[in-house]
Amino acid sequence: MNAENFGSSERLVTAAYVRQGAQGRRAHELRLRALLEQGKCPEDGWDESTIELFLHELAIMDSNNFLGNCGVGEREGRVASGLVARRHYRLIHGIGRSGDISAVQPKAAGSSLLNKLTNSVVLDIIKLAGVRTVTNCFVVPMATGMSLTLCFLTLRHKRPKAKYIIWPRIDQKSCFKSMITAGFEPVVIENVLEGDELRTDIEAVEAKIKSLGAENILCVHSTTSCFAPRVPDRLEELAVICANYDIPHIVNNAYGIQSSKCMHLIQQGARVGRIDAFVQSLDKNFMVPVGGAIIAGFNESFVQEISKMYPGRASASPSLDVLITLLSLGASGYKQLLKERKVSFLASNTFFKSAGNKVLVKTALCGKACLCLENRTEVTQGSLLFFIWPYCAFVL
Amino acid sequence: MNAENFGSSERLVTAAYVRQGAQGRRAHELRLRALLEQGKCPEDGWDESTIELFLHELAIMDSNNFLGNCGVGEREGRVASGLVARRHYRLIHGIGRSGDISAVQPKAAGSSLLNKLTNSVVLDIIKLAGVRTVTNCFVVPMATGMSLTLCFLTLRHKRPKAKYIIWPRIDQKSCFKSMITAGFEPVVIENVLEGDELRTDIEAVEAKIKSLGAENILCVHSTTSCFAPRVPDRLEELAVICANYDIPHIVNNAYGIQSSKCMHLIQQGARVGRIDAFVQSLDKNFMVPVGGAIIAGFNESFVQEISKMYPGRASASPSLDVLITLLSLGASGYKQLLKERKVSFLASNTFFKSAGNKVLVKTALCGKACLCLENRTEVTQGSLLFFIWPYCAFVL
Amino acid sequence: MNAENFGSSERLVTAAYVRQGAQGRRAHELRLRALLEQGKCPEDGWDESTIELFLHELAIMDSNNFLGNCGVGEREGRVASGLVARRHYRLIHGIGRSGDISAVQPKAAGSSLLNKLTNSVVLDIIKLAGVRTVTNCFVVPMATGMSLTLCFLTLRHKRPKAKYIIWPRIDQKSCFKSMITAGFEPVVIENVLEGDELRTDIEAVEAKIKSLGAENILCVHSTTSCFAPRVPDRLEELAVICANYDIPHIVNNAYGIQSSKCMHLIQQGARVGRIDAFVQSLDKNFMVPVGGAIIAGFNESFVQEISKMYPGRASASPSLDVLITLLSLGASGYKQLLKERKVSFLASNTFFKSAGNKVLVKTALCGKACLCLENRTEVTQGSLLFFIWPYCAFVL
Amino acid sequence: MNAENFGSSERLVTAAYVRQGAQGRRAHELRLRALLEQGKCPEDGWDESTIELFLHELAIMDSNNFLGNCGVGEREGRVASGLVARRHYRLIHGIGRSGDISAVQPKAAGSSLLNKLTNSVVLDIIKLAGVRTVTNCFVVPMATGMSLTLCFLTLRHKRPKAKYIIWPRIDQKSCFKSMITAGFEPVVIENVLEGDELRTDIEAVEAKIKSLGAENILCVHSTTSCFAPRVPDRLEELAVICANYDIPHIVNNAYGIQSSKCMHLIQQGARVGRIDAFVQSLDKNFMVPVGGAIIAGFNESFVQEISKMYPGRASASPSLDVLITLLSLGASGYKQLLKERKVSFLASNTFFKSAGNKVLVKTALCGKACLCLENRTEVTQGSLLFFIWPYCAFVL
Repeated sequence: MNAENFGSSERLVTAAYVRQGAQGRRAHELRLRALLEQGKCPEDGWDESTIELFLHELAIMDSNNFLGNCGVGEREGRVASGLVARRHYRLIHGIGRSGDISAVQPKAAGSSLLNKLTNSVVLDIIKLAGVRTVTNCFVVPMATGMSLTLCFLTLRHKRPKAKYIIWPRIDQKSCFKSMITAGFEPVVIENVLEGDELRTDIEAVEAKIKSLGAENILCVHSTTSCFAPRVPDRLEELAVICANYDIPHIVNNAYGIQSSKCMHLIQQGARVGRIDAFVQSLDKNFMVPVGGAIIAGFNESFVQEISKMYPGRASASPSLDVLITLLSLGASGYKQLLKERKVSFLASNTFFKSAGNKVLVKTALCGKACLCLENRTEVTQGSLLFFIWPYCAFVL
Repeated sequence: MNAENFGSSERLVTAAYVRQGAQGRRAHELRLRALLEQGKCPEDGWDESTIELFLHELAIMDSNNFLGNCGVGEREGRVASGLVARRHYRLIHGIGRSGDISAVQPKAAGSSLLNKLTNSVVLDIIKLAGVRTVTNCFVVPMATGMSLTLCFLTLRHKRPKAKYIIWPRIDQKSCFKSMITAGFEPVVIENVLEGDELRTDIEAVEAKIKSLGAENILCVHSTTSCFAPRVPDRLEELAVICANYDIPHIVNNAYGIQSSKCMHLIQQGARVGRIDAFVQSLDKNFMVPVGGAIIAGFNESFVQEISKMYPGRASASPSLDVLITLLSLGASGYKQLLKERKVSFLASNTFFKSAGNKVLVKTALCGKACLCLENRTEVTQGSLLFFIWPYCAFVL
Repeated sequence: MNAENFGSSERLVTAAYVRQGAQGRRAHELRLRALLEQGKCPEDGWDESTIELFLHELAIMDSNNFLGNCGVGEREGRVASGLVARRHYRLIHGIGRSGDISAVQPKAAGSSLLNKLTNSVVLDIIKLAGVRTVTNCFVVPMATGMSLTLCFLTLRHKRPKAKYIIWPRIDQKSCFKSMITAGFEPVVIENVLEGDELRTDIEAVEAKIKSLGAENILCVHSTTSCFAPRVPDRLEELAVICANYDIPHIVNNAYGIQSSKCMHLIQQGARVGRIDAFVQSLDKNFMVPVGGAIIAGFNESFVQEISKMYPGRASASPSLDVLITLLSLGASGYKQLLKERKVSFLASNTFFKSAGNKVLVKTALCGKACLCLENRTEVTQGSLLFFIWPYCAFVL
Repeated sequence: MNAENFGSSERLVTAAYVRQGAQGRRAHELRLRALLEQGKCPEDGWDESTIELFLHELAIMDSNNFLGNCGVGEREGRVASGLVARRHYRLIHGIGRSGDISAVQPKAAGSSLLNKLTNSVVLDIIKLAGVRTVTNCFVVPMATGMSLTLCFLTLRHKRPKAKYIIWPRIDQKSCFKSMITAGFEPVVIENVLEGDELRTDIEAVEAKIKSLGAENILCVHSTTSCFAPRVPDRLEELAVICANYDIPHIVNNAYGIQSSKCMHLIQQGARVGRIDAFVQSLDKNFMVPVGGAIIAGFNESFVQEISKMYPGRASASPSLDVLITLLSLGASGYKQLLKERKVSFLASNTFFKSAGNKVLVKTALCGKACLCLENRTEVTQGSLLFFIWPYCAFVL
C-alpha cells in the first residue's frame, strides 16, 4: 500500500483509522530501511509478520513474479509446483551468477538483495561474535567440508606447485576428506599432551614446513572447534609461522561462531599473523537446517576469489534460512544464545567433574578417554570439556 | 518497500535492477488501487502472491499487529497460537462493531477494509450475475437459514403484530426451521402441478393473505433455487402481490447466484413489485467452505437495518474466504464458471431425457418422482431438471 | 505410514532406523488416542507438527478429499481457491447438519470429529475452570450477543406467552441488543450501590417478577463479567428466585471462563438454584480471532434444543481455532494463563489503590466513575477492580 | 490415525462414517506404498494434500521431531525460527553423512527416506526420458558446474597423472570454470561447420588424445544441450574413442533431460562406447528453484565414488523440491511437459524460418549468428534451432 492506496482506502474506512493503519505500515518500512541502509542484524528481532512481508516484497522484485509475466511463460524461474514456489517465498532465481556466487543477477533484484543482505548481516554477526576485523564473507550452500575444499581449490591457482596441506590432527572425517577431495595430500601433525589437553605441536609444524619446503605447501589447515581433550589449535603461533613462511592459512571454525574462545583465537591470529579464510557451518552456529557454510576472511579480494571459483548459480535456500533466523532473533537474541551456551559449558563442566568414575568411557581416536552416551559426547572426570554442543545444557 | 527503501537498495544492488524491481511492485500497487477505487471484482484474477501480499498489507493496518504492541500486551486481537494467527493472516479483529456488522472498527483499519471490500466486490458480482439494480449487501458468517431468521427478526420490529409467514412449500429442512427459530408460524402454500412442474399457487397465496389479514403477515418467504420437479417460485407475481398488500418479501436464493434464471427472476420481481431482501449461501455460489451467507436488497436502509440487528462483532473468516476466491477467479473466471454450469445443466438434462425408465425412482416429499443415487439428486425422464448442483456435470 | 509402509521403507533405509522412526510415529498416535478416548484437553500442549498432522488426518477422512474424487467434481466441499483450501486444512464441510449444529455429517467424518472433539475439549476446560457440574456445551460461530439471542429464541417455544426478559442493568450494547433482536422486551433492573460496588437489586428482581407474572417472563438474563464498579450479579440468589418461580435463567458469562470468581458463581448458582444456559465468548477467553461463542448448560436436553435451533450447517472456523489453541496450550498452559490473570488482577488493583486522584475520570453510564486511558478501562481509587482484561498486567 | 484410533473415533462419530473416512486414509496409504515399494514416479500426480501428509509423515520419523525431545534440547536438528522449520516441513537433518552424500543417517529415518526416494524417482524419470540403461544417480545441492567439478575431482584419484580435459568448445562460462576450479587444464577442441551447424571435430579430438597421451588426459568433457548453431556433441563417436583409449567420459547434459534428442545421444553413447557420468541441472529440467544438479551414470560403483567425494552432509532442499515436483506432476504430467516442449520447438523453428532478415543479430562467441532479444535466445533464418528453452513457445 502506497500513499495513493491509503488515500483510496479513506473512501471506504474512516480517514483517521486509515491514517493509523498507514502509521502501522510506516513502522515496518522504517525497520526495513534500517536494515537496507546499515546492512546489520537489527538489535531486536523482527516478528514473523514483518519477516514474511519483507520476503514477499523481495519476491515481487524478481522478474519471474512480474505481473505481466504471470503464467505466460517467462523462461527463468518457472516453478511447476505451488508447494515449492510457496516454501521459497517465490524466490526462485538462486544466488549469484555463473561468474560469481556473490554477484547480483540482472533479472532478480529481490534474490540479489536477499543474497547481499544475508552476507552483510552474517558479517555483522561474525564481528559481534568476536572477529572484529573480518572484512568479507559469503554464505555458500555447501557443507563445511566442501567449502574448505573450495578454499583449497582456490589456493591451487595461486600455488600451482603445492601438493601438501599441513594439518594438526583432528578426528573428524569430513575435515580430512575436504583435503583429499581437493586433490591434496594431508600432512598430519600429531598433537602433544599438555596436562589434560591435546594441543598443537608448533615445533613439529615448523619442522615439517622446513623439511617439505614452503613452496610445496598449499596451506596450513587449522581447527578451532573440537572436542576434549583436543583443544583448539594455537592459532596465534600458527598464524605467525604462516606469515613468516608466506604460507596461506585456512581455519576450520565449524562450530566456532558461538564460542567466544574460538572467535578470539581467530581475531588474535589475524592480528599477529596470517589467516586467509575461516570457514564455519550454518546449521550449528545459527540453528538452521543442515547444508550451508560461511567462508570469511580478512582480505576482501581473496574472499572474492573464492566466491568466483564456484561455477554456476547456487541455491538460495541456506541464505534464506539464515537471514530469516537472524532477523527473527535479532542481535540481542543471538547474543543471548551465546550467553546461554557459556552457562551450559560451565554447568556441564562442573557436572563432569563431579560425575567421577561412574561415567562410561570409550577410547576415542585421539587417544584420550571420552564418553558417548547416546547422542551426547562428554568427557571424563578431570579433563577439560572445551566444547559443549550448542545450547544443550538440558540434555546432559 | 517505499521509494526510500528502493533508494537504499541501490546501495546493495545495481540501480537499474532495483528500478526494474520497483516497477514490478508498482504493478501490484496499481491492481490494489483499482480495487480500492472501484470496489469491483477485478476482471482478471490475481495470482496467489498478489493476494497474499494484499492480505499482509491489510493485517499490518490492524492495531494488534502494530510493531510497538508486539508481545507487550495489546489487549485486543491477541492470539495464543501461531497456527491460528497465520491461517487468518493475522486479521484477528473480526468484522463489524457491537452496533452493526457492516461498520468499521476504530482499531482495525485493515479488517474494516477487508469487510467493506468484500461486501463491495460481492455486490459487484451479484450485479454481474443478473440482479443489476441491487443496492446493498453484506456477508454474514451464518448459514442461509440463520440469515433468513435474522431477516425475519428484523421485520418483527416493523410489524409487531405479525405472526405468520406465507411460504410456498419447498422441502428443505433449514428453510422451514428459519421461520420457526424466528418464532413465526409458517403458512404453507402447496404448489400446483403444471405439466411436469410444480409451481407456485399464486391464487392460494393471495387468498391466504386475505383470510389472515395483511397486517398479521410478517412477510412472504419465496424460493428460487430448488430441485425438480419443483420450479422456482413465480417471483414476479409474488412481488406484485406483496406490493399491493404492502407485505415484505424475503427471497431464499440459496444457490441462485450461479443461475441466470434465478437472478433474472429476482431482478424482474424487484422491477415490477416488491422484494425486501434476498439471501444466498456462500459455499455453493462461491465454492468456499460452508458457513456464510449474503443478505442483499434493493433498499439500502433496510439492508442496513438487518446488519444492525446482529448483536456483536462477527467472524471475518467467511468474508476472507470469499474475497480471496473472487480476487483469484476475477470477474472473468466467475463468468466462466457460470457458463460451465449452464453447459452442465443442458448436458445432464439431455442425459436424463435419454435415461428413460432405467432410473431408480423414489417419491419425494413434494409428491413428485425424483431420483436419489448416492449423493446425486436427479429427476425422472421427461421432467425438467431445473437445478443442477454447481459445476457437476462430470459426477452425473 | 502404516505398518506395511514402514515395512516397505526398510527396503530403502536401514531397518533399525525405520523402526526408530516408527516409534516416533507411535508417540503421535498415542497422543491422538488419548484425545479420542478421553475427549479431554491434553495436560501438556502439543507442538505444531503434531497438531498439523492431526488436522491433515482429519481432512482426509472428509469425502471432498477422497482420492477418487480429486478434481472430478465431487459436488460437496469444492473450493475454488487453493489459498482458501489450505488455510482451512481442507476441512470444508463446516459443522453440523441442517437439523442440528452439533450433529455429525455423513460425508464428513473428519469435520464431524473436529466438531465433537472441540465441544468435548471445551467442556473439559469449563470444568477445569470451575464449573464442575456442566454437562454439555457447543461452540457456535456467532458473537456472544447473537448466541444469547439463539438461547432466547429457543426459550420462546417453551414459553409462548412470555414477552419480557428480566435484566439487571449492564452497560454493554450487544447484551441489550441480544434481547431486542430476539423480539423481547428487556425489563431493566437498576443496580444498588453497596460500598464501592454496584450490585444486583435482588428485591427489585423479585418484585418485578411478581408484578409482571412469572408466565409472562421469558427468563432472567444475568451477567458475570463486567467492569467496576459494577460487580457480577448475585447469581446464587437469582438462581434461587428462578427456581422458585420456575423461570429460566440465562447467564451472560462473556469473558468469565478465565475468571475463577465468575465460574464459581455459576457453579454455585447451578447448585442452589436454576441456571439453564451460560454463554461465553471464544476470543477473549481462548485468545482466538473474534466471532465465536460457547453455549453451555447443566441439562443436556436443553443445550441440545438450542443447538437444534440453528437452521443450517455452520462455519467450522471458530471451532478449528479453539481446538488448535487448546491442543497447543494444553490444560497446563491454560491453567497457567488463568493464574497469570489473577496475578495481573491483584497487581493492577494495588496500582489503582495507590494511583489516587491522579487518574482521569469520566462518568460511565452505570453512574460510577471509571477511567478510560486509550484502550484501558480502569477504575478510580478506592473501588474494587473486578475485571481486568485478559492477561494484560503489562499494559497497565 | 491407526486402526485403534479409528476405533476410538467411533465413540464420537457414527461408525459407518468413520469407516468411510478410514477408507479415505487407506487410499493415501496405498499410494505411499506403491511409491515405497517401486521407488518410481507415480503415473498420476498426487494432489497437494497427499504430498503434504507424506512429508509430515517423513518428518515425524526424524529424531529432532520425536515427541520426548520436543523443546528439551535434542542437539541435532534444532531450528531457531518457526518460519524456517515450517518451510522445510521440519526435515532439518539434510542428506547424507560425512562419508557419503547418498548414505542414510542413523537419527533421521525420514530425511534418509526422502533422499533415497528422490534419487530413485529421479532415476525412474531419467529412464523414462530416454536413458533406459542408467543404473544410478543422485541429487546434489550444487550447480551443474560445481557438480562437474566434483566428477573431475573424483577422477583425479583414479588418474593421478592426468592434467588435461578434452573439451569440444561450448560457450558457456560455468562449463569452462568447472574444469578450472577442479584444477585441470581444458584442451579446447574447436567445432567444425557442417551446413548450418557447428559439430564436434572427432578427428581433432582423437589427434589431440594421441599427441597428449591418453594417460595425461583426465577425461573427455562433452556437451549435449546447447544453442544453435552449435549442435550436441557426437556422443557416439566420442564414447567410442573414450572406450578405445580407456579415457573417462563426462557429459554435460545441463538442460537435456527434457530433450529426447539429448537423452537418445547419451543412451547411444553408453551402448556403443564409454560414458562414465552425465550431469544435469535440476531447475530447468524439473522447474524447481535454482541450485541443484543430478549426477548419473551407468556404473553403480563409480557414481557411488562421486557421492563419497562430497565432504559432509548436504542441504536436502533441492531434493525436497524435486520430489514434491515429480510427485505432483506424476510421470504422465512430466511426459506431457516433454511433449509440449517438442511442439514448442517445432513451432518456434517454423517461426524463425519465416522471420527472415528482420531479426536482430549479434555474433556469438561460437562464431555463428544468434539473436538475443530481451530474454530470448533465438537463431537466424535458415539455421536449425536445436534447443528451445523449456516450455516457452508462448514467449517467442
